[in-house]
Amino acid sequence: MNTSQYPSVLLENAVNELARLPGIGRKTAMRLALFVLKEDKADVLRFADTIKILREEIQYCKSCFNISDAEVCDICASPKRDHSLVCVVESIRDVMAIENTQQFKGIYHVLGGVISPMEGIGPDDLTIQPLVERVKAGEIKEVVFALSATMEGDTTNFYIYRKISEDAVNVTTIARGVAIGDELEYADEVTLGRSLVNRLPFEKSL
Amino acid sequence: MNTSQYPSVLLENAVNELARLPGIGRKTAMRLALFVLKEDKADVLRFADTIKILREEIQYCKSCFNISDAEVCDICASPKRDHSLVCVVESIRDVMAIENTQQFKGIYHVLGGVISPMEGIGPDDLTIQPLVERVKAGEIKEVVFALSATMEGDTTNFYIYRKISEDAVNVTTIARGVAIGDELEYADEVTLGRSLVNRLPFEKSL
Repeated sequence: MNTSQYPSVLLENAVNELARLPGIGRKTAMRLALFVLKEDKADVLRFADTIKILREEIQYCKSCFNISDAEVCDICASPKRDHSLVCVVESIRDVMAIENTQQFKGIYHVLGGVISPMEGIGPDDLTIQPLVERVKAGEIKEVVFALSATMEGDTTNFYIYRKISEDAVNVTTIARGVAIGDELEYADEVTLGRSLVNRLPFEKSL
Repeated sequence: MNTSQYPSVLLENAVNELARLPGIGRKTAMRLALFVLKEDKADVLRFADTIKILREEIQYCKSCFNISDAEVCDICASPKRDHSLVCVVESIRDVMAIENTQQFKGIYHVLGGVISPMEGIGPDDLTIQPLVERVKAGEIKEVVFALSATMEGDTTNFYIYRKISEDAVNVTTIARGVAIGDELEYADEVTLGRSLVNRLPFEKSL
């Protein structure tokens, strides 16, 4: 304990804890701790409890593994969604990104990551087996891969594909191409090449 | 509650709380909340408790108003410090900045801000009266003002000065001038002018 740097052990502990958050350095942590000291006690208690409750009470949907306040998430529980169409994503954030587009009316399957031998993540660390079981149950007609366009994402796609290719299910992947609003000359060549190979009838692009 | 944006009310609450921290927007708050979800439960509990304890148990030194784990802070309690020399600062952070220089062997008085009619902060919102009482008690021989070199800081200096100028105490202010390492041409003209007026015998600058 460097008592000359921090006037209080409680303050030092708080700075240490805040500095463990991603993207928060010690200077920012100090600023946050002093902010906490100036806040109303009730506000700080509510803050601390909310974080604690988030970690303790959050559930993962037993069907799609999205986070949820109940056993089954709102999306899986909704009769308005197409339960025969499943989009496979890496994380909860991807679900939120796709939901924000309001273009997808099916349901999801959150893998929890992608297969990455470099980071020691194998198929058993992800929710691949439950996905295979969902497919084998027979209700699903199409599985859409929406993983990152990286080697790890492609590997994961292929691994899952091999497990379900025997089943009576369409396997598709989201379109890759030049982003809308992008100028052609700034698109990377792999993306540009892929967008030429996978060109669409013009009427479909309208 | 926009349930289409957040898959969980618990998550939404946590994002709302984290986004109240200064400098943390909603995107960063979301990243922090997902980090919390991946952390060990024990780590999150310790985090939340540390923040709560900081706010609930922190004390302010009854002499200098620095934050402290006890009734009197380590600096005020230390027999190695010169208790006749008091440095007046705005905040705890200023105490820490001065302590880091290891150039000051006196004790402090933390005002809690400066007089600022614009922000509705008057003399009674600060610890000016306790400072005056410390001076009147007679042990203090010198008061050093180390407030910001702003109009509010100068006003506060002058307000305190009028209250203690009758007492047998030296009132000084920290030196203002061209920062060490700065090139002269980039110094602002007020600072440069002040550093000329307050020039020192060369031997003193060594």
